[in-house]
Amino acid sequence: MLPEVDELRRQADAALRARAARVIPGGMYGHQSAAKLPSPQFVARAQGSRVWDVDGNEYIDLMSAYGPVVLGHRHPRVEEAAWRQAREADCLNAPSPRMVELAEALTEAVSYANWAIFAKNGTDATTLCVTIARAATGRRKVLIARGSYHGAAAWCTPGSAGVIADDKRHVIPFEYNDERSLAAALEAAGGDLAAIVITPIRHDLGMDLESPAPSFAAAVRHHCDQRDALLILDEVRAGYRLSYGSSWDYLGVEPDLSAWSKALANGYPLAAVLGGDRVRDAAAEVYTTGSFWFAAVPMAAAIATREALIEEMAIEQMDAAGTRLCAGLRDQARSYDLEVTVSGPPQMPFMTFAGDSDGQLAYLFAQIALEKGVWLHPYHNWFMSAALTEGEIDSALTVTDQAFEAVARSTH
Amino acid sequence: MLPEVDELRRQADAALRARAARVIPGGMYGHQSAAKLPSPQFVARAQGSRVWDVDGNEYIDLMSAYGPVVLGHRHPRVEEAAWRQAREADCLNAPSPRMVELAEALTEAVSYANWAIFAKNGTDATTLCVTIARAATGRRKVLIARGSYHGAAAWCTPGSAGVIADDKRHVIPFEYNDERSLAAALEAAGGDLAAIVITPIRHDLGMDLESPAPSFAAAVRHHCDQRDALLILDEVRAGYRLSYGSSWDYLGVEPDLSAWSKALANGYPLAAVLGGDRVRDAAAEVYTTGSFWFAAVPMAAAIATREALIEEMAIEQMDAAGTRLCAGLRDQARSYDLEVTVSGPPQMPFMTFAGDSDGQLAYLFAQIALEKGVWLHPYHNWFMSAALTEGEIDSALTVTDQAFEAVARSTH
Repeated sequence: MLPEVDELRRQADAALRARAARVIPGGMYGHQSAAKLPSPQFVARAQGSRVWDVDGNEYIDLMSAYGPVVLGHRHPRVEEAAWRQAREADCLNAPSPRMVELAEALTEAVSYANWAIFAKNGTDATTLCVTIARAATGRRKVLIARGSYHGAAAWCTPGSAGVIADDKRHVIPFEYNDERSLAAALEAAGGDLAAIVITPIRHDLGMDLESPAPSFAAAVRHHCDQRDALLILDEVRAGYRLSYGSSWDYLGVEPDLSAWSKALANGYPLAAVLGGDRVRDAAAEVYTTGSFWFAAVPMAAAIATREALIEEMAIEQMDAAGTRLCAGLRDQARSYDLEVTVSGPPQMPFMTFAGDSDGQLAYLFAQIALEKGVWLHPYHNWFMSAALTEGEIDSALTVTDQAFEAVARSTH
Repeated sequence: MLPEVDELRRQADAALRARAARVIPGGMYGHQSAAKLPSPQFVARAQGSRVWDVDGNEYIDLMSAYGPVVLGHRHPRVEEAAWRQAREADCLNAPSPRMVELAEALTEAVSYANWAIFAKNGTDATTLCVTIARAATGRRKVLIARGSYHGAAAWCTPGSAGVIADDKRHVIPFEYNDERSLAAALEAAGGDLAAIVITPIRHDLGMDLESPAPSFAAAVRHHCDQRDALLILDEVRAGYRLSYGSSWDYLGVEPDLSAWSKALANGYPLAAVLGGDRVRDAAAEVYTTGSFWFAAVPMAAAIATREALIEEMAIEQMDAAGTRLCAGLRDQARSYDLEVTVSGPPQMPFMTFAGDSDGQLAYLFAQIALEKGVWLHPYHNWFMSAALTEGEIDSALTVTDQAFEAVARSTH
């Protein structure tokens, strides 16, 4: 039997949930709904690697806002750039010079990219990639890996309510890292293939993370070339955590288009589509816009984020912190005789328990970790930030040891 | 022949355009592309009712960022609320209490609304309304007025590149304010009608603005009721400029769902769907989310915007400023023997020249106005802000008088 959440530690949260239930459908929605999570529903404050909930409980943050916070909360350099920009201008009748500077920085950093389009949501960016691919090829079919999350738009949403058959009529699934299923999907697309959309790593909900087989990534590129279709890399979740440029640089596989968002501006709302000259004309033809897309503050934050990322060697920091965390988790599981899989690049780690088909062990583990002050997730991959020091990882491991102990007690 | 833009006044802008042409498709995209506009492409600073371009030219701002800036740029109360919130928390693992407070404020203000869902783009909100309507009714067809802009998503975009037939298969057009065309569209929808989507006023690109005939608004409501379909009011552009609550309060016609964005947070990125209990369950079923949707700063700004709006009687301010502007424009046109139509509620005025089928007169008028320091638009409605004083409207009118003179010279 699972221990109950300590109600005394969640009084303000409970009061807010009751109010929210009246004015928000289901009390909350989307990926931050805590209805089925052991985490608090509301938070009050954050700094560096720490977050505080509305009851004043403090957490070492291993979720980083589900990705956006890559340098740590309220990073001084990013905040200063944002506030400096905000004192001049944000959302106006036209963009600021920051838009050009940011487009220059990103196209310089990402090998295949010669142009950038900015938006607000990751979904804006993935959807725009598909629209550009359709405009460029004059074809309709889009291949996506089964279980991959590319956003909440009708063509890709994991939801079904309100989604009609026409929304997904030209979307064909394949299995990540499975060339045979890719071949079958390609055959189904026939001569109508516009694009293959793929994430740099496999990071599906509740599943162990998986790197692409180099031969699979090469095959995806090869098939696109053969059919004059476009390869779209969905960097929304992985971007800036695996590489300062393209997450597939290490594979030597270049997409034609990519979608970026989360970590671009360390939490400020921004998304981008990057692409090469081959699709520049198509990108210019597509009508796309938004009321806040040209606001200067998130772009100033994005420029500062990129500078700080490189100067602080943030990816190496996250790699070191994540590696330390993953090694510690494996050791602890072994010491409790628990079989776990710690997967993913260390910057985006995740852990599952063997035989935990209903997720109860993962839930209990996360619940105890949260109770003791470490914010992690039972079925979504975690996100390191560069603010996580060796000492904080060790503090987190002290907590996870207790979480493992509780799991061991529940199973033995 | 049109006078050329004074190049000396646009040197920094020209240099930025040249850089942008290399790294942004078409040099710029969306509604803020100045490729076909007499306005500068880049701006540097804004305060109150004023905006400065990158060459240091100052403008009285009659566009208000195409709507978002309703209280004036960098409104002290909104900025203070935003910075105070930013020092605590913005984009985190969960929403802040601001989300509940804002949902409470909006549902209290808008008669038919019992719940709120927040997002980032106006397009997010209109699209979510349609998805909720389809979930609630189990039907597919959506009626929209021909020429009405509801966003840049595939189902409603005015663009065609990359859009496929399936995207708009279930969207049926009717003519705004035309009951006969509405009846025909309803017949085409048959038993498959999910919703009618309509803007509170007709504000189509390049057209005189038009209020709904009360009988037409009533008919829209009646037909939805008859067919158990939903009425969706797209408040993205008009919201907070016509009313502190629903823009259709004065008509006594309540929608089931509404989409809001632009002015909600005086320029901070936010959108909302509001609805009643009838569609609450459907709204809870639809999967929708975004990485930055639960960020606290725009919500804190939205709370402060609403408070300031009411305390400063912002709508009355905009009404007074717009009424003074419109009366002045009509007088000036008459004095130059020019036939114009000044249309729209004074808070969202617009002006067209008689016989100006290619828009050249409107372009020249806007070009001279911009050159002399008033930012307005040749073919998109303008937006007042509450920062526009009587004195500034008089200053703007001094400029428009010169613009009329140039138009008169070009036609006589």
